[in-house]
Amino acid sequence: MADLSLVLLHHPVLDKNGLVVTSALTNMDIHDIARSARTYGVRHFYVATPVKALRVLAAKIMEHWETGYGSTYNATRKEALSLVRLEHDLDTTILAVERESGSRPRVVVTSARGGPHRTTFAELRRQLESSLEPHLVVLGTGWGLAPEVTERADVALEPICGPTDYNHLSVRSAAAIILDRLCGAR
Amino acid sequence: MADLSLVLLHHPVLDKNGLVVTSALTNMDIHDIARSARTYGVRHFYVATPVKALRVLAAKIMEHWETGYGSTYNATRKEALSLVRLEHDLDTTILAVERESGSRPRVVVTSARGGPHRTTFAELRRQLESSLEPHLVVLGTGWGLAPEVTERADVALEPICGPTDYNHLSVRSAAAIILDRLCGAR
Repeated sequence: MADLSLVLLHHPVLDKNGLVVTSALTNMDIHDIARSARTYGVRHFYVATPVKALRVLAAKIMEHWETGYGSTYNATRKEALSLVRLEHDLDTTILAVERESGSRPRVVVTSARGGPHRTTFAELRRQLESSLEPHLVVLGTGWGLAPEVTERADVALEPICGPTDYNHLSVRSAAAIILDRLCGAR
Repeated sequence: MADLSLVLLHHPVLDKNGLVVTSALTNMDIHDIARSARTYGVRHFYVATPVKALRVLAAKIMEHWETGYGSTYNATRKEALSLVRLEHDLDTTILAVERESGSRPRVVVTSARGGPHRTTFAELRRQLESSLEPHLVVLGTGWGLAPEVTERADVALEPICGPTDYNHLSVRSAAAIILDRLCGAR
């Protein structure tokens, strides 16, 4: 089974007009996705933002839950947050996974939009089960990952489809579904 | 295909010490679960709290996104929130589904804990595909649904399992995974 990590990128992502921006960090993204990551056996959940003040703020909030008063108030939150690592961007995250896992990860990009050469969830699940290479699943905030990120994909994952034509899940919900499809008990 | 609705209950639910309490309404629960509900073709998403002031507050926030400035700022949010209905409790919600669908719904309770007589996701999916009865999936906030709710189940759904023993997903993530397992494209 391949080592699986996640990264939530806050730059470069698109805004609703398709411009490349840096999105703000959302506290609940960290908590929800950390819990999903812990549930599905993810090695590390990287939260990447180039804004140093936001990394410092996130570290302070996590400290409350990991060693401060919150650590005794809610132990399951502490356990989930122990997977979180703060990073600058995709490049520093790839280096961090390489340090952890011993080899450069395959980069799996996600998108709510379809496109050519998408890998299905079932196919990536099979690859993860038979591979020894680390894999890094890349999630975008805002209106999704900028093209300069998606162009670097080793694997472009198909979008999540329900029985309707609406495809505007929150990134928290999308992360949960992606992990369940890739790693959930079958 | 059965009509599927969801309800998020804020009373009676358990706190971390197992006491029955009323939990506060969380704005992001409404937005995230509404988006998941819209994606997976759910008929209505009921948000139930006995606290009138919280229903009034929720209605005010939704109004911003449905007819106020937010409706032009973010149309996908407006579309998702159009599924939301505010209710008092499980009983008023069951009556509301009955009014909408013409018959009393089968009540499906969810839990992160296992127990006897649980229906698997695959089995409930088959039942939904072949049934004409409306179904109401009940989600709890806080530390989960109180026994007086779970005892009223027509169907007790199995817990979500990943490959680890950690089962503390956020209710937003759990709702997304439950809908994907029951209604996702296969």
